[in-house]
Amino acid sequence: MRKKIFFAFLLFPFLTRAQQATDSTFLKQLADNVLTQGQAYTLLHQLTKQIGGRLAGSPQFMQAVLWGEKVMKAAGADSVYLQPCMVPHWVRGGKDKAVITQMGNRKVQKSLSVTALGNSLGTPKGGITASVLAVKNFEELEARKNEAKGKIVFFNYPFNPTYIVPGRAYGETGVYRRNGASIAAKYGAVGVVIRSLSGSTDNNAHTGVMAYNDSFPKIPAAALGLIDADSLYAWCQRMPVQLHLETYGHFLPDTVGYNVVGVLRGTELPHQYITVGGHLDSWDEGEGAHDDGAGIVQTIEILRAFKALGYRPKHSMHFVLFANEENGMRGGNEYARVAAQQSDEPIFALESDEGGFTPRGFGCSTNAEKLALIRSWIPLLQPYGTDVINANGGGADIGPLVRHFHIPACGLMPDNQRYFDIHHTKADVFEAVNKRELLLGAINMAGLVYLVDKYF
Amino acid sequence: MRKKIFFAFLLFPFLTRAQQATDSTFLKQLADNVLTQGQAYTLLHQLTKQIGGRLAGSPQFMQAVLWGEKVMKAAGADSVYLQPCMVPHWVRGGKDKAVITQMGNRKVQKSLSVTALGNSLGTPKGGITASVLAVKNFEELEARKNEAKGKIVFFNYPFNPTYIVPGRAYGETGVYRRNGASIAAKYGAVGVVIRSLSGSTDNNAHTGVMAYNDSFPKIPAAALGLIDADSLYAWCQRMPVQLHLETYGHFLPDTVGYNVVGVLRGTELPHQYITVGGHLDSWDEGEGAHDDGAGIVQTIEILRAFKALGYRPKHSMHFVLFANEENGMRGGNEYARVAAQQSDEPIFALESDEGGFTPRGFGCSTNAEKLALIRSWIPLLQPYGTDVINANGGGADIGPLVRHFHIPACGLMPDNQRYFDIHHTKADVFEAVNKRELLLGAINMAGLVYLVDKYF
Repeated sequence: MRKKIFFAFLLFPFLTRAQQATDSTFLKQLADNVLTQGQAYTLLHQLTKQIGGRLAGSPQFMQAVLWGEKVMKAAGADSVYLQPCMVPHWVRGGKDKAVITQMGNRKVQKSLSVTALGNSLGTPKGGITASVLAVKNFEELEARKNEAKGKIVFFNYPFNPTYIVPGRAYGETGVYRRNGASIAAKYGAVGVVIRSLSGSTDNNAHTGVMAYNDSFPKIPAAALGLIDADSLYAWCQRMPVQLHLETYGHFLPDTVGYNVVGVLRGTELPHQYITVGGHLDSWDEGEGAHDDGAGIVQTIEILRAFKALGYRPKHSMHFVLFANEENGMRGGNEYARVAAQQSDEPIFALESDEGGFTPRGFGCSTNAEKLALIRSWIPLLQPYGTDVINANGGGADIGPLVRHFHIPACGLMPDNQRYFDIHHTKADVFEAVNKRELLLGAINMAGLVYLVDKYF
Repeated sequence: MRKKIFFAFLLFPFLTRAQQATDSTFLKQLADNVLTQGQAYTLLHQLTKQIGGRLAGSPQFMQAVLWGEKVMKAAGADSVYLQPCMVPHWVRGGKDKAVITQMGNRKVQKSLSVTALGNSLGTPKGGITASVLAVKNFEELEARKNEAKGKIVFFNYPFNPTYIVPGRAYGETGVYRRNGASIAAKYGAVGVVIRSLSGSTDNNAHTGVMAYNDSFPKIPAAALGLIDADSLYAWCQRMPVQLHLETYGHFLPDTVGYNVVGVLRGTELPHQYITVGGHLDSWDEGEGAHDDGAGIVQTIEILRAFKALGYRPKHSMHFVLFANEENGMRGGNEYARVAAQQSDEPIFALESDEGGFTPRGFGCSTNAEKLALIRSWIPLLQPYGTDVINANGGGADIGPLVRHFHIPACGLMPDNQRYFDIHHTKADVFEAVNKRELLLGAINMAGLVYLVDKYF
């Protein structure tokens, strides 16, 4: 904390007063332009309402690619190209069901709010019906592993509400979604259900990616809404409970997807470039509005605003709509693979993939010197919301590029209290995004990119 | 900006390392307690869904008073009392209507989204029908004053989207809501409609208080939703437009209302007290969830958390649910009047009346020395969201107390990008409030009050 304040003080060693005045004026023009002429909200409406959920491999994803190409051209990119990459093609395959069929000696029919986890394989036709082994965590399963055989294991590991940053709770619970199925299968479980990775007050089920360990049977895996998870867990403490699970997930052959890359060519150092992006794919349950429609339309907004203001960057800029973050990371990997083969050099990468909420700053992974430089810009960005530059950040899609080239990476850090309430659910829709919050995110991103272009 | 950073540096002159550690530990306990045991969200549900909108003088307001008394007792106040004050009793009286009846030569029936302004008097029975004089602002009306006679004047002054803090736009447009009717009446207008005080993307009409200048006829006054305001303004530029306005507002005799005051008695300085509050009344159009149900339940939450943790303040504390902010300010005035007659002395006041969104800090009106002291606590509060202490703030309800006693006053400063989208509309409902955001506001308020109690 002292460090942060210390660096904020170093403004003056880095920028002259005249530079500050010029930058401040430009940033105000940029902000005014985005707030009065910005297209991000309109574009988000198109992406979410005309296309909707767009998992890699789906027809909607291809519609989104063509849409992205069109709107980046319209926004004024010097060139736009599609960068092909093979993507997994998982399909949900039907309407997931989880129904409690027996509680103690009593036959019942209680439907639960459920969604199959992404990349999971469906139940045998007609579903499975089995007793539930409800456990709090992996440790409890380990202690009760002899009870797991033939059962549906239910991991009810909750978000810790005392973490002020909800992302920390998401990080802690993620292992149950990713690995829960194989860990349960190891002990003979026939299916797994998890408590959704959220701390919300509603009952929406949250999907998200899982993976199988090939050493164990690939059992079906699904997530329950929190209210139903609480009920199921309580019932399981009092009596034997039988659950019927029916899911349809399966893979079609890998198919071609595309990163959409819009380019502004640099005036002084065209062979060095800055990458800005978000991911174009989204889960199928909602409209992918915050995750990551917001990042997509903010990326395009920066391009549009720079062109509208006649700003010609020194370095080239890549505005990238990445192909496949959610269930494969193939877009980010392919972008980095191609970049590694080319002579042009990336110097900085920025991603927005934490929702379209009011920006509070950035998380930046880089060395101390660059971090100090970036933090010295806080006073320039603070009028638009950047109060804080944290020392770690970036984004999944830019990760492979950043790791290959060892370049500084930042991620937009919006207010995130609501993010995991709607993340990967049917509630991640256009209506959950506020126009001004979305635009302010774009302004802070554009401001950071402008300063990087000028002073890196 | 430099000043802010400068003061943040002064932490160490003010607090010893041992004090910091003690405070930090207490604040963590406080936050954990609120995030795991907090009642604010449940109480907000009661206030909004069991009672709902609660304008001063209404039966709902009296229900809210009795509810407030009960829940403050349950939260553990040493004593709770009702402080009577006379309040205005304005009633909407019916369903407001604004219908375009003629456009050019064509008879039409186009209903607009409308709400009568609070404290405005209704149209004569059957409504009024008149030509619309659409103007951008007072200057245009002044220039066209000869056209106003017999017309409905329409002030279409918009929120300036380039202000990053929407409250600034609200401040700038407020004069049209408050004074527009009498300024139009001065030139012979028979009614006034204004563009709602908002920058939202929807068409909800925003009510709010207005006042008449007794020198001019008291003409009906209403606000239009933004989409309809845009349309009406555009049509008026192209052709004569006739509007039918029908409103029913009127005053019943002033009636008795109450401030609800919960007290924690100080252990060392019981005759000095800290006042914390929000306002219990709300407009009738919605449920008064953000404005100001949030402030009410946060106030009660602080009391509950202090009691739950066994914290005994040095100074006494008043937790005040003020009676009548929206259309009369009688609650805050009466509280200050009574305080001025008593020998006990207030030392600090805090209000939450800017919505239940994620806290970003406080605005504090006080002298340089006290401001420096308060800013020195930022590092202690920052883990819970307080990044910034601005140099101006407070609240309408605590205003009279603060002005009389010249005491430091702070107002919770939540993220406010969404606030004026829903402010005074039917959209200000429980569902618009996020549980964690609400609780985090209470945590930061409680933390500030704890530090004031300890170090003032």
